[in-house]
Amino acid sequence: MKIQVINPNTTADMTKDISESAHYFSRPGTEIACVNPEKGPESIEGFYDESMAVPGLIEELLKCEARGGVDAYVVACFGDPGLGALRELTAKPVVGIAESAMMLASFVAAKFSIVTIMPRIRVMLEELVRRTGAEHRLAAIRTPDLAVLDFARDFAGCKETLIAEARDTVDRDGAEAIILGCAGMAGFAAEVEKAVRVPVFDPVASAVKVAEVLVDMGMQTSKRCTFQPPEKKELKGMPPLFQP
Amino acid sequence: MKIQVINPNTTADMTKDISESAHYFSRPGTEIACVNPEKGPESIEGFYDESMAVPGLIEELLKCEARGGVDAYVVACFGDPGLGALRELTAKPVVGIAESAMMLASFVAAKFSIVTIMPRIRVMLEELVRRTGAEHRLAAIRTPDLAVLDFARDFAGCKETLIAEARDTVDRDGAEAIILGCAGMAGFAAEVEKAVRVPVFDPVASAVKVAEVLVDMGMQTSKRCTFQPPEKKELKGMPPLFQP
Amino acid sequence: MKIQVINPNTTADMTKDISESAHYFSRPGTEIACVNPEKGPESIEGFYDESMAVPGLIEELLKCEARGGVDAYVVACFGDPGLGALRELTAKPVVGIAESAMMLASFVAAKFSIVTIMPRIRVMLEELVRRTGAEHRLAAIRTPDLAVLDFARDFAGCKETLIAEARDTVDRDGAEAIILGCAGMAGFAAEVEKAVRVPVFDPVASAVKVAEVLVDMGMQTSKRCTFQPPEKKELKGMPPLFQP
Amino acid sequence: MKIQVINPNTTADMTKDISESAHYFSRPGTEIACVNPEKGPESIEGFYDESMAVPGLIEELLKCEARGGVDAYVVACFGDPGLGALRELTAKPVVGIAESAMMLASFVAAKFSIVTIMPRIRVMLEELVRRTGAEHRLAAIRTPDLAVLDFARDFAGCKETLIAEARDTVDRDGAEAIILGCAGMAGFAAEVEKAVRVPVFDPVASAVKVAEVLVDMGMQTSKRCTFQPPEKKELKGMPPLFQP
Amino acid sequence: MKIQVINPNTTADMTKDISESAHYFSRPGTEIACVNPEKGPESIEGFYDESMAVPGLIEELLKCEARGGVDAYVVACFGDPGLGALRELTAKPVVGIAESAMMLASFVAAKFSIVTIMPRIRVMLEELVRRTGAEHRLAAIRTPDLAVLDFARDFAGCKETLIAEARDTVDRDGAEAIILGCAGMAGFAAEVEKAVRVPVFDPVASAVKVAEVLVDMGMQTSKRCTFQPPEKKELKGMPPLFQP
Amino acid sequence: MKIQVINPNTTADMTKDISESAHYFSRPGTEIACVNPEKGPESIEGFYDESMAVPGLIEELLKCEARGGVDAYVVACFGDPGLGALRELTAKPVVGIAESAMMLASFVAAKFSIVTIMPRIRVMLEELVRRTGAEHRLAAIRTPDLAVLDFARDFAGCKETLIAEARDTVDRDGAEAIILGCAGMAGFAAEVEKAVRVPVFDPVASAVKVAEVLVDMGMQTSKRCTFQPPEKKELKGMPPLFQP
Repeated sequence: MKIQVINPNTTADMTKDISESAHYFSRPGTEIACVNPEKGPESIEGFYDESMAVPGLIEELLKCEARGGVDAYVVACFGDPGLGALRELTAKPVVGIAESAMMLASFVAAKFSIVTIMPRIRVMLEELVRRTGAEHRLAAIRTPDLAVLDFARDFAGCKETLIAEARDTVDRDGAEAIILGCAGMAGFAAEVEKAVRVPVFDPVASAVKVAEVLVDMGMQTSKRCTFQPPEKKELKGMPPLFQP
Repeated sequence: MKIQVINPNTTADMTKDISESAHYFSRPGTEIACVNPEKGPESIEGFYDESMAVPGLIEELLKCEARGGVDAYVVACFGDPGLGALRELTAKPVVGIAESAMMLASFVAAKFSIVTIMPRIRVMLEELVRRTGAEHRLAAIRTPDLAVLDFARDFAGCKETLIAEARDTVDRDGAEAIILGCAGMAGFAAEVEKAVRVPVFDPVASAVKVAEVLVDMGMQTSKRCTFQPPEKKELKGMPPLFQP
Repeated sequence: MKIQVINPNTTADMTKDISESAHYFSRPGTEIACVNPEKGPESIEGFYDESMAVPGLIEELLKCEARGGVDAYVVACFGDPGLGALRELTAKPVVGIAESAMMLASFVAAKFSIVTIMPRIRVMLEELVRRTGAEHRLAAIRTPDLAVLDFARDFAGCKETLIAEARDTVDRDGAEAIILGCAGMAGFAAEVEKAVRVPVFDPVASAVKVAEVLVDMGMQTSKRCTFQPPEKKELKGMPPLFQP
Repeated sequence: MKIQVINPNTTADMTKDISESAHYFSRPGTEIACVNPEKGPESIEGFYDESMAVPGLIEELLKCEARGGVDAYVVACFGDPGLGALRELTAKPVVGIAESAMMLASFVAAKFSIVTIMPRIRVMLEELVRRTGAEHRLAAIRTPDLAVLDFARDFAGCKETLIAEARDTVDRDGAEAIILGCAGMAGFAAEVEKAVRVPVFDPVASAVKVAEVLVDMGMQTSKRCTFQPPEKKELKGMPPLFQP
Repeated sequence: MKIQVINPNTTADMTKDISESAHYFSRPGTEIACVNPEKGPESIEGFYDESMAVPGLIEELLKCEARGGVDAYVVACFGDPGLGALRELTAKPVVGIAESAMMLASFVAAKFSIVTIMPRIRVMLEELVRRTGAEHRLAAIRTPDLAVLDFARDFAGCKETLIAEARDTVDRDGAEAIILGCAGMAGFAAEVEKAVRVPVFDPVASAVKVAEVLVDMGMQTSKRCTFQPPEKKELKGMPPLFQP
Repeated sequence: MKIQVINPNTTADMTKDISESAHYFSRPGTEIACVNPEKGPESIEGFYDESMAVPGLIEELLKCEARGGVDAYVVACFGDPGLGALRELTAKPVVGIAESAMMLASFVAAKFSIVTIMPRIRVMLEELVRRTGAEHRLAAIRTPDLAVLDFARDFAGCKETLIAEARDTVDRDGAEAIILGCAGMAGFAAEVEKAVRVPVFDPVASAVKVAEVLVDMGMQTSKRCTFQPPEKKELKGMPPLFQP
């Protein structure tokens, strides 16, 4: 099976890290392709970044759909951007990394904390947790002063920060598992888990596993109502790829 | 004061209808400008349409910001798209039409129903109502088989449909007010209200009034945390307007 | 237009302060009348005070209705007392100051805190926030050791207390806006805002603006069901004004 | 022990019916006194009625407190009016009939419906159910076209209506118990139960039983914070009884 | 009337303590029998213990049902185990101690805290509070490092710990009443109440009082749907008592 | 990897059906063992059945743990019984079939309905949905008049019933996916899906897939707090297997 991971930002180095995470637990027979748009923000750290990234994300999906051969998509940004749009555009399963990590965590822990990046995304994540229905599972959202691209720049420093936050939320907030709240945190899960001794979820790895499952089950996105193909209409000024 | 209304779709005729709604209750001293992007979908009837419309919406706001002179923005689509992004990009108040109508309705009615367009947007609106905190005020969401652009095409037919739905939700669901759930429903509020005898909210008109209030009060979007200006970063392949 | 503000307590000095707040952002063409009952508690700081104040509040509304000429009512107490009763008694919009401030704050801030008076009203306000559907927007309720009538007695001391609480809730609770939770806090909003640098809402001023909007839109309270005129019946021992 | 039941409306005949309900399941050693204010509405069928009834309710409690000898109070109106105020004014337990019936019902049924009076009180009761935390237990609120004082006027007709509604909500809404939603429904519980064969709760009888329990346990209202005695202050124009 | 209290664990000494609590506020005419299963865990401090205790609990109820003469059952473990099963097996009221204490506390306090045993049961109790609909009443759950059987072993030490926790949750969390969250805390309620000066609920005593009420009212568990007698079927390998 | 499926009822024929479901989508390298207790109810159709089944379920797990070689457990009953207990007893992942199906369904459908058995389990499932945090995803719970063991007895008749219910909930309740709400519905998913044309989830198959994922990821149940091994204590009268 082929799982297409799309990093919605334009930082190719981060796509490599995401690829590493995506392969971490994937099965031998799973082919994983990772891609990122050519246009859009270098990282997604707020609503504007997210809005500007989604068309590029959509474009990558449409290109893949045109080429064919993909069995499921993973959107590799912890804000789970654009899922609704993509689910309209393809019948192949489209899997968000935040929703995947939260759901898998609930099978092995009574409470989890999300350890993520800068404070400005806290409210965005609170809404995501509410939308996923996981409020009662949430111990805390921790927002240390880190940026998305810091993880590639300073592995050791970020590791220290993440471990300190994870340890603190386990000790004070009652977290019994940790979700790493950024697609760029490849390679940290094992390190944090070793230090903190509770299950730690890499969200990209989690989503790839959910995608494998949906493909194994032959599941397709329901086209009954909400995720029907978009209504046929002109998208003015947009390349042919986006037209009906 | 100058209120800039942005219709996030690209149908200029609809922008005219929106302008009509926007002027309906605006004050003499309020200058209202209505605009729509040049690029993007003709109408917004789902997640894909919304995602593809937001960058054009942002672009219009950025152009206005560059020119200056605007006191508040209204986003004229009932899904309230892009509000978070716009609130990061300007300190001027940014007002959604759905949230405005729901909030104003709550002052004059114990329960309201939303009468909107096609069934596929029901779940999208349910999430919007939840996010606004108005679940306990909601009598029902009614989704007759209408498209956004039908309102301009067939006023009489749409009027009949809207009145029938409104009457039915008042009679069966206990609605005590009606919110028209589409920016393109200019001119319908008064007609429906006359027929159904409960308060009927045109959402564009509602948002313009909220915008006037926020400007009168000198309110600006809080830049404390969530709506700080976007982090400085390159948006690859995007015109200079979008760059930091 | 004429907006009738009713201070439900009997302290005429406080009515003057409320009048100051009411005029603060009102439009030139808006006539504002402020009144308080002759009978009832000097201030409202709990359930008993509130219950004993409401009949006086109702009486003032009924006198105004008998005289005519009012376009909308504002109830100037942060507990939003008596709104349901007043909405039955008149078709003119009746606006609470707490609900107004919470709704307007949600347009410019992702999270707000209420800075109010003494701890005993905390649970009362928690219920009010829940009833308004704003729990997910609430950062914290802060209840410094102040009484309603302190604000007029010791402006400087109260200012210091309010600023300290506001600063603390911004720093620790993640508040991105502040709502002043008492009708007697006239003149503090600007001072607190200057010190704390996030939007600060004076609730009386907020409610007057909402009232202006509803009048501009010609909105009347829905008489469909919940807010029908009271059932006709004798109110034994009550003055004729209260009789059907 | 002496339980003082206060009917907050001024209809002495209804107080007699309430007395009948109050005695229905009371213990031999329980002395029950029933009283109603001299001033106020004949019945409570909305927000205005409720607001105008509460001061009379308070006055009756204050008279009882002055006389002494009461061990607990029951407020005999299904809207549970004035409980907060009364809990500030006395340390004796104050018990609402709606909250009592809902809580007792939850011990013997997974779902209950409230069968009450006219549609206009539906939203008021929805808020009451929410405040009590019983939404997940509620099957439905049924609001047949009956007025409070109809129960005394036409026992047979009301019985027929109540049985029909109760039967219907058991059959269609999945109700497994019925709560009679009006203090004036004395004598109906047994009749409805016989017809519908699920537990039926008379709310006045329910509250008397809860009051007996609290007295047996020596429980007093917590004076720690929310229900402290009212702040000392003048209540202008009010009789000495209401003064601190 | 006869109330059968079943301690679902197998520690006879604890059954004696429970008996003491059960008698504390019971009425003269109430006969209270306390029993515990012969098989099963010595104490219930987690999900496994609970699951292994429930069949013994059921067996005790079935034996009582076979003998007859019981008017109501109380399950004396703060996790409220097995209530659904027992409610299927008998029409006599079955009362949980946690739900009883939470409901009674809500009549005399705006907020309560649960002071219980070891941290591992926190999530279990959070779910219980949610299921009871009391989240908005809960100040905090306090889980000092105590085991169920400690209460009998070291009265003085446990008393000190409970008082310290209760005092702290009153001071810091805004608790206005305390619920003792373990069936083995006989004799502590009065001591803690004396020290902390807010109402303190012994849950076993609370449940006995609720049971008395339900018996007084002639209430039986609704057999309409959810709590119908179990479907007739073989329980392989189980003694005849468990067979249909 | 080896996944141990435990059918908590004692009907060996149903264990065979469950085995069929469990193998349906399992991977070639996954060894699946299915077992059922020797003691306990033939089927689980209510709270009593569930309570009596859990010790047998635990015993089977303990036997497997003693033998070793299992990588994850699936509990094959749609009420998700005993999960908390099993999670205390082993560090291997323990997966419920209802929670698995609800979580997987949320990736491909905006709304799902559960089509299950007899009405008496409706409230039990409502609580399960709430506990899983999926209320906002639930279209409806459908409870046709079927018993657990009917599925093996009358495949054709049950198929007809399930298809009719599924079709109806898609048409009337807005379901966009169907979850089959019983472990005994092996072989129906494909049939119903073909007829109704929305994704249909067999819950046993869903849980096996989740279990595979957790094993692939090396995830173990968090032993930090809630799911620590049971406290050491005697289980009187229980076989050695149950002792610490």
